[in-house]
Amino acid sequence: MFQTRSEYDRGVNTFSPEGRLFQVEYAIEAIKLGSTAIAIRTDHGVVLAVEKRMSSPLMEPSSLDKIMEIDSHIACAVSGLTADAQSMVEHGRVQAQNHYFTYNEPMPAQALTQALCDLGANFGTGEEDSMSRPFGVALLVAGYDEDEGYQLYHTDPSGTFLKYKAKAIGSGSEGAQTTLQEEYKDDFTLEQAETLALSTLKAVMEEKVNTTNVDMACVGPKYKRYGNDEIKAIIDRL
Amino acid sequence: MFQTRSEYDRGVNTFSPEGRLFQVEYAIEAIKLGSTAIAIRTDHGVVLAVEKRMSSPLMEPSSLDKIMEIDSHIACAVSGLTADAQSMVEHGRVQAQNHYFTYNEPMPAQALTQALCDLGANFGTGEEDSMSRPFGVALLVAGYDEDEGYQLYHTDPSGTFLKYKAKAIGSGSEGAQTTLQEEYKDDFTLEQAETLALSTLKAVMEEKVNTTNVDMACVGPKYKRYGNDEIKAIIDRL
Amino acid sequence: MFQTRSEYDRGVNTFSPEGRLFQVEYAIEAIKLGSTAIAIRTDHGVVLAVEKRMSSPLMEPSSLDKIMEIDSHIACAVSGLTADAQSMVEHGRVQAQNHYFTYNEPMPAQALTQALCDLGANFGTGEEDSMSRPFGVALLVAGYDEDEGYQLYHTDPSGTFLKYKAKAIGSGSEGAQTTLQEEYKDDFTLEQAETLALSTLKAVMEEKVNTTNVDMACVGPKYKRYGNDEIKAIIDRL
Amino acid sequence: MFQTRSEYDRGVNTFSPEGRLFQVEYAIEAIKLGSTAIAIRTDHGVVLAVEKRMSSPLMEPSSLDKIMEIDSHIACAVSGLTADAQSMVEHGRVQAQNHYFTYNEPMPAQALTQALCDLGANFGTGEEDSMSRPFGVALLVAGYDEDEGYQLYHTDPSGTFLKYKAKAIGSGSEGAQTTLQEEYKDDFTLEQAETLALSTLKAVMEEKVNTTNVDMACVGPKYKRYGNDEIKAIIDRL
Amino acid sequence: MFQTRSEYDRGVNTFSPEGRLFQVEYAIEAIKLGSTAIAIRTDHGVVLAVEKRMSSPLMEPSSLDKIMEIDSHIACAVSGLTADAQSMVEHGRVQAQNHYFTYNEPMPAQALTQALCDLGANFGTGEEDSMSRPFGVALLVAGYDEDEGYQLYHTDPSGTFLKYKAKAIGSGSEGAQTTLQEEYKDDFTLEQAETLALSTLKAVMEEKVNTTNVDMACVGPKYKRYGNDEIKAIIDRL
Amino acid sequence: MFQTRSEYDRGVNTFSPEGRLFQVEYAIEAIKLGSTAIAIRTDHGVVLAVEKRMSSPLMEPSSLDKIMEIDSHIACAVSGLTADAQSMVEHGRVQAQNHYFTYNEPMPAQALTQALCDLGANFGTGEEDSMSRPFGVALLVAGYDEDEGYQLYHTDPSGTFLKYKAKAIGSGSEGAQTTLQEEYKDDFTLEQAETLALSTLKAVMEEKVNTTNVDMACVGPKYKRYGNDEIKAIIDRL
Amino acid sequence: MFQTRSEYDRGVNTFSPEGRLFQVEYAIEAIKLGSTAIAIRTDHGVVLAVEKRMSSPLMEPSSLDKIMEIDSHIACAVSGLTADAQSMVEHGRVQAQNHYFTYNEPMPAQALTQALCDLGANFGTGEEDSMSRPFGVALLVAGYDEDEGYQLYHTDPSGTFLKYKAKAIGSGSEGAQTTLQEEYKDDFTLEQAETLALSTLKAVMEEKVNTTNVDMACVGPKYKRYGNDEIKAIIDRL
Repeated sequence: MFQTRSEYDRGVNTFSPEGRLFQVEYAIEAIKLGSTAIAIRTDHGVVLAVEKRMSSPLMEPSSLDKIMEIDSHIACAVSGLTADAQSMVEHGRVQAQNHYFTYNEPMPAQALTQALCDLGANFGTGEEDSMSRPFGVALLVAGYDEDEGYQLYHTDPSGTFLKYKAKAIGSGSEGAQTTLQEEYKDDFTLEQAETLALSTLKAVMEEKVNTTNVDMACVGPKYKRYGNDEIKAIIDRL
Repeated sequence: MFQTRSEYDRGVNTFSPEGRLFQVEYAIEAIKLGSTAIAIRTDHGVVLAVEKRMSSPLMEPSSLDKIMEIDSHIACAVSGLTADAQSMVEHGRVQAQNHYFTYNEPMPAQALTQALCDLGANFGTGEEDSMSRPFGVALLVAGYDEDEGYQLYHTDPSGTFLKYKAKAIGSGSEGAQTTLQEEYKDDFTLEQAETLALSTLKAVMEEKVNTTNVDMACVGPKYKRYGNDEIKAIIDRL
Repeated sequence: MFQTRSEYDRGVNTFSPEGRLFQVEYAIEAIKLGSTAIAIRTDHGVVLAVEKRMSSPLMEPSSLDKIMEIDSHIACAVSGLTADAQSMVEHGRVQAQNHYFTYNEPMPAQALTQALCDLGANFGTGEEDSMSRPFGVALLVAGYDEDEGYQLYHTDPSGTFLKYKAKAIGSGSEGAQTTLQEEYKDDFTLEQAETLALSTLKAVMEEKVNTTNVDMACVGPKYKRYGNDEIKAIIDRL
Repeated sequence: MFQTRSEYDRGVNTFSPEGRLFQVEYAIEAIKLGSTAIAIRTDHGVVLAVEKRMSSPLMEPSSLDKIMEIDSHIACAVSGLTADAQSMVEHGRVQAQNHYFTYNEPMPAQALTQALCDLGANFGTGEEDSMSRPFGVALLVAGYDEDEGYQLYHTDPSGTFLKYKAKAIGSGSEGAQTTLQEEYKDDFTLEQAETLALSTLKAVMEEKVNTTNVDMACVGPKYKRYGNDEIKAIIDRL
Repeated sequence: MFQTRSEYDRGVNTFSPEGRLFQVEYAIEAIKLGSTAIAIRTDHGVVLAVEKRMSSPLMEPSSLDKIMEIDSHIACAVSGLTADAQSMVEHGRVQAQNHYFTYNEPMPAQALTQALCDLGANFGTGEEDSMSRPFGVALLVAGYDEDEGYQLYHTDPSGTFLKYKAKAIGSGSEGAQTTLQEEYKDDFTLEQAETLALSTLKAVMEEKVNTTNVDMACVGPKYKRYGNDEIKAIIDRL
Repeated sequence: MFQTRSEYDRGVNTFSPEGRLFQVEYAIEAIKLGSTAIAIRTDHGVVLAVEKRMSSPLMEPSSLDKIMEIDSHIACAVSGLTADAQSMVEHGRVQAQNHYFTYNEPMPAQALTQALCDLGANFGTGEEDSMSRPFGVALLVAGYDEDEGYQLYHTDPSGTFLKYKAKAIGSGSEGAQTTLQEEYKDDFTLEQAETLALSTLKAVMEEKVNTTNVDMACVGPKYKRYGNDEIKAIIDRL
Repeated sequence: MFQTRSEYDRGVNTFSPEGRLFQVEYAIEAIKLGSTAIAIRTDHGVVLAVEKRMSSPLMEPSSLDKIMEIDSHIACAVSGLTADAQSMVEHGRVQAQNHYFTYNEPMPAQALTQALCDLGANFGTGEEDSMSRPFGVALLVAGYDEDEGYQLYHTDPSGTFLKYKAKAIGSGSEGAQTTLQEEYKDDFTLEQAETLALSTLKAVMEEKVNTTNVDMACVGPKYKRYGNDEIKAIIDRL
């Protein structure tokens, strides 16, 4: 899509004659280089499943952390630049604690996602904590709160977010999203969502799925990371 | 219009030899890539109608928010970069609350629009809260106050605003504006304005209009977002 | 005049080998793209008349504000970038109030014009409130004070001002200024000045003059904007 | 002299391989575009005479101010960018007042000229009050103090000054300086100096000299601007 | 891999059209120019072994310090730019002491590694202590704490870290990593790890291994640098 | 020497591939454009002699000040950019006074020269008082103190200084230095030094030497500027 | 080595695709233009010997100071840009005094060298006291402390240092280092070191060695500069 270079694509806040901000679009490309992540919302919880690319058999799988807890009721799956994801999640954790201490209630999932996007949209302003470039990362934020129930948000490098029923990001996102659209049902049980998440991931991964190269978690309503046994059980269900 | 590149179009505050600021003009192009939004002022209220482009059937329509409340008597429809719109509206909300706490009266709609434009015109100054580039967004600000009654303002990336009876922005704005000019009557009822807004939007949208891909709201005198039933009723009237 | 690009015209404070500051000259070009404005000083008041370019019949003429009050005894007609004009006038209003509160007398018109030019000449310095480029706007400042009587000043983007008996700015300024030179008399009544201002404007406008596409005001000695009836009466006198 | 562009002439503080600072030289060119100004020192006072280029007969000659009082015993004639001259003179006035309040004596003319040059040489440093480019203006500073008597200084954009018996600046300076060298006598009366100043100016001006297009003043020992009658009398003496 | 230059590789925070940050990738290349370093984790300690390139026989081997103690329970082997390594390690030492004084417990190895990566990911932000470019260094951080036991982390210039059982960095890392993958056993004794580390290093070094051109240390659980006798004994075991 | 441009000569702190800082070298070229200055140290005092280039007979020779007193026991002759010399000397005067007030003794000549060079070497650092480019001036600092006796230092734009017995700078420095080397004797009387200084200057000046176009001073041990009579007497001695 | 220019060699902190920082490498080239300096460590002291390039016979040899005392037990020989060396040594002197006042013991030589390198590695960070470019100077730091005895360190522009038994820097360093490697013995007396230092220097100097064009000093354990007699005696020994 961007093979031919433009004269307007190096300044982080320079509009092209067509009104595009190329550095934001290029940051979105960074996500397409990342590992695939999938999230599915049901009325009983939100399931997150991610691919883990093990570049070496001597790497410890546990340290390749593509699913991160933000608060006990909010978590996210990430794809793109890991260090950027780390910064955004750390920012989110502080926001969630601030909210709790100020209002004595868990931070609503949408408010937290908005806070992450405010940080993300703030690039190139020179303000405190702002980046000099867009964050090269997409997040699938899964959360629960009493007013809105289970929610799933997708953020992108431009600092915008949208609410989804099911969403895939990363290198295999195109095929995965098509599968999700075909298979997703509004009345999924959590178990059905787990199965669809993993079968979709399996379809776009080059390697055979096993407990080492995928990670899964759910928010339902508390954040819970799946152990190897649980993942193995879902693989067996496929 | 801007296919041939200029030597003067990358500096955000560089005049071309003809006295043009190209980055502002390019930001205006960004709006032409956005979804269409329409606003019509009557003596009984201001109607806002926007197109919602659903990129995936798994997206939740409610999160594609192109109409935003600023205060209980002021709202806006936006087209262009969503994150920029979010920043401007958030700024407007703070201004409106400040005004209320200082003067104990609702902020007049024109004063609020001026505040939004002051922020918008401030790009490239390095001042606090200022952007390093023009905002890539246009707003249709609908408001009511006792002195001026119902009002509709259009803001653009240069930080200027003008008062309109009816105005369209976004990718379908050219055709829509022509329709509005031909059909608008000064003595419209609110219902007539709703019908014209939606029929105009329908004419420029590629998809068939339904309750999922359009949003409507009015200020009359309080801000009210239309439910699916209400939008359905207007569609049926067409 | 500037069709051929120069190597020295992008830095806002770069001299060309001939000692010219091109960005200031280009800002002056921005004014030549603006609507025409005319001001005529008499011993009985200063008359301001401006063209209003209505890009759409649905635009409210009242919001296309090319004449602005600065203090009750000072007003200006503007041509060029509207947002820049807004900034300068707002600065002038604050200066006028500061003067009044400090010295308990209305700010002299020349002091106010000097204050506007100090702001205008301050571009590229990085100081508080300074612009990173020249203001792309010219002002015709009309004022009255007891010492100097009625005065008319013309400011340009370089931050210099000159006193005039009659002056035209904007796209039709060349032809208009010639007419003014031929027709102006030192002993004009206010009525004669109104007639000359409007007939000159009429001659350079493409559209037929009516109460919608021109605005008029005078300082005599208080600022007064002309109503539609008054403008109509002057049109009828032509 | 500078028709061929150099690779080293855009950075305000970049030496060329020959050790030249081109932006300073280009600023000096800006002065050669300005109106001519002449100053002549005698033992009885310093005479200043300047050309005023009236671009329009409707301009008020009094506002084209090329001679400015700095303190009651110091004045200057300027040529070049008017807004820059305004800044320097304003700086000089503040320095003169500061000196008076600190030492209870009028500021010596050379100290004031040094203060103006310190400001002028300070470009590109980013310090408070400093310019980002050289001032595009030359000053002929005329002053009197008890120790040194009548003095005439010439400042240029590099921030250096020299003491002269008679000096011309601006577009006609070359021819005028030659005349001054031929005609100047050490024992001139003030009247003789007035005559030489105006005759020299007359020789380099394109228009016929009259009370509208020249201005004159002297420091002798107090600053005094000549009225039209006085100028007329000198014209008649030619 | 990067022989052909890109248009996007000089700005430290500029995305290429494919979403890559080239300056980070180039910093990773800096490490491939460095000397080889190897780390092996066992249940009885973590072994570090590094190559020392003696450019002159008059150099004192002890000063070529590629293994550095961070705290008594954490050490690291480095490859790449020595001065950058020095900065990161110094930062880590301060963090470790701060942790100890705040919480009265040794800093967990992962928290320390995260602190190093936070510093490393912070380049180009202009914040205090941040670099204007990525650090050109990779670290093999070996640590012990009660909760996690013996751990080995690998950090890279992008500010990300991963946990490994055994890892090689530097110019010989490709061949060394292959050897480690083939030979590593989960139930290694410390002695077996020492032998594998040194034999792997030996295989990729151009010079014959001796006590002068390699350095070894272990964390087990305290940091201990091997003396020449100990290294000699391991060499003899090969 | 620098006719062919380099790719590395515009950044004030950019090394060329050969390790040269071109902007410093270009600043040294600026001195070769300046007027010639000569200094000769004897055991009885240091003699300074400078050429004064009178560009106009109406210039007052006294204002072309190429020899400046720094303290009563230290003076310097300068060549290059006058405004830069003024800044350095002013800095030196403040340093000398500070030293006196702090230690109650005259500042040693070498310490003062070091202070001038510290300022000169500080370019491009953005620190307070620092320049954004090298100073384009060379100084011959003549001083006396009890410990070291009479001393002569030469400073250059790189911020280094060296001690000389006799030194010439400026456009005629090459020829003059050769003469000094041939003629200088260690046992010169002050009178012999005066004669050699002026005869050397005479040999490299285009104009005939007279009391108007040369200036002389000595430090012996107090600073003393020579009157016209004294200079005339030395001219007669030649 | 760097004749062909690279696209990556002007930014002070820009990595080339191979992971090199060219400006650091170019700064190292600056040292190869400098005069040769040699240092030899023995168990009885460290000997420093430097070449002094007298550009004029009128220069005072004593002012060409290539050996500088940092504290009474630490000194250094320098090669490269003299003003940079001056800055580093001045920084080292302050550090040494701070250490003494804080800990009441002489600063260890390695700690001081580390402090110098911390300053040197800090370029381009914008921190206080940091340079905007690498220092163009290498130092041979000779020191003594009770724990480590006599030590010799070599620092380079990247901010790294290494410990040596004998080291040569500057234009003749390549040949000199070879000689040192061949001739150096671990059991040298101070006298043997003096002889080797000077004979090595003699071999790479173009001029004949005499007391004017070389300087020598030792740290043993106190810093001592050799007088002309002592140098003459060593020359005679050759």
